[in-house]
Amino acid sequence: MSFPQHIGVIPDGNRRWAEKNGLNKEDGYIYGLAPSLQLLKLCQKTGVEELTYYGFTMDNTKRKNVQTQAFTKACVEAVKMIAEEDADLLVVGNTESPKFPQELLPYTEKRTTFGSGGIKVNFLVNYGWHWDLSNLEENEKQSKKGIISTLKSKQISRIDLIIRWGSRRRLSGFLPAQSVYADFYVVDKYWPDFAPEDFYKALEWYKQQDITLGG
Amino acid sequence: MSFPQHIGVIPDGNRRWAEKNGLNKEDGYIYGLAPSLQLLKLCQKTGVEELTYYGFTMDNTKRKNVQTQAFTKACVEAVKMIAEEDADLLVVGNTESPKFPQELLPYTEKRTTFGSGGIKVNFLVNYGWHWDLSNLEENEKQSKKGIISTLKSKQISRIDLIIRWGSRRRLSGFLPAQSVYADFYVVDKYWPDFAPEDFYKALEWYKQQDITLGG
Repeated sequence: MSFPQHIGVIPDGNRRWAEKNGLNKEDGYIYGLAPSLQLLKLCQKTGVEELTYYGFTMDNTKRKNVQTQAFTKACVEAVKMIAEEDADLLVVGNTESPKFPQELLPYTEKRTTFGSGGIKVNFLVNYGWHWDLSNLEENEKQSKKGIISTLKSKQISRIDLIIRWGSRRRLSGFLPAQSVYADFYVVDKYWPDFAPEDFYKALEWYKQQDITLGG
Repeated sequence: MSFPQHIGVIPDGNRRWAEKNGLNKEDGYIYGLAPSLQLLKLCQKTGVEELTYYGFTMDNTKRKNVQTQAFTKACVEAVKMIAEEDADLLVVGNTESPKFPQELLPYTEKRTTFGSGGIKVNFLVNYGWHWDLSNLEENEKQSKKGIISTLKSKQISRIDLIIRWGSRRRLSGFLPAQSVYADFYVVDKYWPDFAPEDFYKALEWYKQQDITLGG
């Protein structure tokens, strides 16, 4: 029976949810905040050790300005919300670009303990897979740990289970090195429609997987 | 309506198929040869431009010796079989290890045209994602093309659709950089039970996907 130590979350479908509910696309993101907090609490309750949220990417910021502003704001709010919980928080992304929200700079570089700490929470903000993999240091050993240790996202560990809301069956550039062995569970609901049963079903499914780590 | 230019194939389930059919695990691999040829012909017929087979990995060679010998032999046979068709063939993997079958050395380094050529066929042999990503050159531009161009597998282009047989929902280290935007279709059958309808259903599914390449 397997239990995932590290879960990656791709909270997709905010814009489609907004359209379905008669809102402008950019109005969907804020409805993803409550689910983010719910999921964190479920992970704490069940003993997940590390949780990584796919906030937004450098690719995403090429969208219409009104959308980019909206998802940036939602991510800033989400991080602030997590910082009020018990968590060891880290924000990972390209801080050298103007697209990176300056309010989140204090959460980058090193992990900060909030409340009594506990679960490691990583939040990807202005992340890019190409940014992450670029300038990998010379690594003669070609070992797995060796590669991870030269990534920009080196403080994020290997992922066991990726849960993606919003039906799409793709990684969309989510942490390619940490995701190589991850099991991939897709929820056919939009992220703002998150319910705890989505999470519990994913855990049940993961239990049945034969985890080999490529062996 | 989307059509995949480049399809990646993870032909999994050979050992489970063998056990189900009362054979030793290692006897399953050879039953994957005919499906490999069938799939190549379907790709040629439908106009797929590039096809990448996940042969075996450096991880896989840590299995029992009798299994390693069996899947190595099956991959050598598969490559020889493809070399009798019309294809531009390339074998990609760590050739410096003794696990790399010497018979396949002539197919590495550069793409070779067989018959009248046409479809690009890549066959991963003794491949490792850590090997692939190691020693990435300094790449100040942090661009996507920049990253791909410094990979060991740089001759393999971005993948549109990954089809995995054998039910598992994971990449298992398959070309992490080229797979970042790939749509992932899983067939709940073992690879030796391949049927053309598996391929056609995957194409139908892919048509319905909204391809954004991370945008």
